Amino acid sequence: MTLQRKDLLGLEHLDAKEIETILNTVPPFKSLFTRSIKKVPTLRGKTVVNLFYEPSTRTRTSFEIASKRLSADVVNISVASSSVVKGESLIDTGKTLEAMKADIIIIRHGLAGAPAVLARNQHASHINAGDGFHEHPSQGLLDLYTIREKKKRLKGLKVLLVGDILHSRVAKSNIWGLTKLGAEVRVSGPPTLIPSRITDLGVKVFYNLDEALKDVDVVNILRIQLERQQENLFPSVHEYIELYQVTANRLRAAKPDVMIMHPGPMNRGIEISSEVADGPNAVIYEQVTNGIAVRMAILYLLSGKKKAI
Amino acid sequence: MTLQRKDLLGLEHLDAKEIETILNTVPPFKSLFTRSIKKVPTLRGKTVVNLFYEPSTRTRTSFEIASKRLSADVVNISVASSSVVKGESLIDTGKTLEAMKADIIIIRHGLAGAPAVLARNQHASHINAGDGFHEHPSQGLLDLYTIREKKKRLKGLKVLLVGDILHSRVAKSNIWGLTKLGAEVRVSGPPTLIPSRITDLGVKVFYNLDEALKDVDVVNILRIQLERQQENLFPSVHEYIELYQVTANRLRAAKPDVMIMHPGPMNRGIEISSEVADGPNAVIYEQVTNGIAVRMAILYLLSGKKKAI
Amino acid sequence: MTLQRKDLLGLEHLDAKEIETILNTVPPFKSLFTRSIKKVPTLRGKTVVNLFYEPSTRTRTSFEIASKRLSADVVNISVASSSVVKGESLIDTGKTLEAMKADIIIIRHGLAGAPAVLARNQHASHINAGDGFHEHPSQGLLDLYTIREKKKRLKGLKVLLVGDILHSRVAKSNIWGLTKLGAEVRVSGPPTLIPSRITDLGVKVFYNLDEALKDVDVVNILRIQLERQQENLFPSVHEYIELYQVTANRLRAAKPDVMIMHPGPMNRGIEISSEVADGPNAVIYEQVTNGIAVRMAILYLLSGKKKAI
Repeated sequence: MTLQRKDLLGLEHLDAKEIETILNTVPPFKSLFTRSIKKVPTLRGKTVVNLFYEPSTRTRTSFEIASKRLSADVVNISVASSSVVKGESLIDTGKTLEAMKADIIIIRHGLAGAPAVLARNQHASHINAGDGFHEHPSQGLLDLYTIREKKKRLKGLKVLLVGDILHSRVAKSNIWGLTKLGAEVRVSGPPTLIPSRITDLGVKVFYNLDEALKDVDVVNILRIQLERQQENLFPSVHEYIELYQVTANRLRAAKPDVMIMHPGPMNRGIEISSEVADGPNAVIYEQVTNGIAVRMAILYLLSGKKKAI
Repeated sequence: MTLQRKDLLGLEHLDAKEIETILNTVPPFKSLFTRSIKKVPTLRGKTVVNLFYEPSTRTRTSFEIASKRLSADVVNISVASSSVVKGESLIDTGKTLEAMKADIIIIRHGLAGAPAVLARNQHASHINAGDGFHEHPSQGLLDLYTIREKKKRLKGLKVLLVGDILHSRVAKSNIWGLTKLGAEVRVSGPPTLIPSRITDLGVKVFYNLDEALKDVDVVNILRIQLERQQENLFPSVHEYIELYQVTANRLRAAKPDVMIMHPGPMNRGIEISSEVADGPNAVIYEQVTNGIAVRMAILYLLSGKKKAI
Repeated sequence: MTLQRKDLLGLEHLDAKEIETILNTVPPFKSLFTRSIKKVPTLRGKTVVNLFYEPSTRTRTSFEIASKRLSADVVNISVASSSVVKGESLIDTGKTLEAMKADIIIIRHGLAGAPAVLARNQHASHINAGDGFHEHPSQGLLDLYTIREKKKRLKGLKVLLVGDILHSRVAKSNIWGLTKLGAEVRVSGPPTLIPSRITDLGVKVFYNLDEALKDVDVVNILRIQLERQQENLFPSVHEYIELYQVTANRLRAAKPDVMIMHPGPMNRGIEISSEVADGPNAVIYEQVTNGIAVRMAILYLLSGKKKAI
């Protein structure tokens, strides 16, 4: 299996076949994790750069472990704490990494489109690890993979995303990926946190969570950024909990085997009750495990290598 | 030699035989350091995570080098500088690392017992790299190893710990380890910095340093945390120096071949005079060298691998 | 080819033959970058420490990638963000790294001479990665290498350094290296930013940039530190641009094939116009590529290994 592109910037740009190619490449990498030596020489001698303009422990760690299990050399650059690169334009930083012969650059940036700007100007492969309010495609892919692994299909499933759809790049990547693979996508959250034109993407909007939950197969609960409160985008945490916290009681409206997902880190007791987070239907930590395997598959496919393991 | 436990949380929990097993495992790793290639494939394909909730260059670097010399893949997570993990509960962070299939987690945390909480909930091995005012077992072990290497025994030796016994995790781990292996342990420091019930551990308390030093084989001098002054736990640095600085003159009361130890970094001229720090009886930098070898032995024993080198 | 010294502290201390030895060692390392596996086992089992007392992404990343492409184990220590090492004397930190059996220590420090102090007290090799207003020899060497690679010689070339000569360690290392290899060195900048005794080094001073540019083969444009303005060392950015910005128009005075260099990161529109930075004569990103190859050569030569690749 191969991928005919240099970069992974968003699921908006992939067709269903490409997404399936990535998902189908994951299992041999995941199977490594049960071996004593969780490592293959696939990317030996390749240089992977984690270029993070926003702090992130979880995503950076996941990509770092994925790269090391592929035997790549990994360099972490955290620009928030780097005074030198800060004064330099994004494109000049990109050219510098290109000149250093980086093979794959994983970039998180506060501005939507920043990874695309870098990718367009360079030979290195770029992976968007989150850009502004735009996309976070590796998270979208690991969510798709986790659903498909458990439910054996994506087509026809009812998948609900709950929370701050407006600012969430996880939501955007999920919506693009799920609709391309034939799932029925619903979103639910406060009207101020749902973009008005979201229905153009083939998504159903429910301001009432109980209605949204009716008969769904999967609920993906987004992390609430408490700092949004200052922007008056939702009235109070108390009211958010009242209206949108996913609880065991509310989940009775969903299918009995409803899958519970969360990209983490969770605000327990806010967007998700602990009972749900720790319940038998939660796959939240399987998402984390799959995250590394999916990222290994992405790194492998973008590297243009012929043989996976 | 093997160790029948998953974690190293403190020397309080080990029996004398287990401590000796660890100490006896060190020499082949130490002997590596004189070779041209200071590296063995023992932990190839294993993932080691340095999870530091308190800043530490020295201990983090020692564990990182130890892990790399064992060919493990190492990931550093500094939570002080990580906004994302910060909002997450300790147990959820632990579950995330478990889901990433980390094999060994080295954790430093401001709360006593935090490493034990993580260890209890996970399959991965945990090494306590310092928790609150509790223990720092790898430092205790490297101190034991260093004494035994020089003095050929621990049993019957008189070992004095000087300084802030109350807050020092190094002191706690030394006391547990030394008493289990039959050394006679003394502590000396200002009454406000010595826990009243310390004698329950079989330790002799001396508020007068000159009396404490009489005939000792080893003096282990703890680092004074100057910020304790604000808490009124000792009246002034000047008075501390007057009463508790270990000087060449004071050391005349000890045995002629008294060993001088310090876990570093030293406040020269405060808890230790430069003459003593640089004198012929100081083994302060041998402690650092042994620190890496001892940590390699710990990592190896906890990894459950059959063959050391 | 071998180098009969333990450390690289400055180009002031090398003779022409030693500099040529380093430059001649670069090509096999550079040729690695076009291979699929950009890695050799030359420094396998060696421990390289990046000890940075000043923040630097670019230089740290370049040394880190160089070390990893040589298969060394690399540990990054950023002292600005490290509270523990901070309170320790430089020499005690050095002894600690020595005790950890670090093979090569790359050090950047705010005080001129700090790397020399460390190097004198230790067996490990030290590379000065910038000390105060003194030297940055690996940058000087990569600049020499880049000129020689393009111009096929250094002897007799007219090389101009423009900007803040007083504070620039890049300038100092270039001046020492270029004059030793027979180039004619000119400097140009505001009188307040040119040390009065610089002519003792065999350098010609031009306060007028247009005169300085006449017939030069190479222009190396230094980064302006905008914070120098507060020290009243130059009147205004506007005036600096007016008098010392290197523009296409001004460059007509130079040779037609004049090479344009900049150590980065660039302040476009201040010390260099974008037209010049992106023009056909600029080798700014080739400097970055050569930087890694030159640092690999330095690391290899200092490691005392017999075989390069």
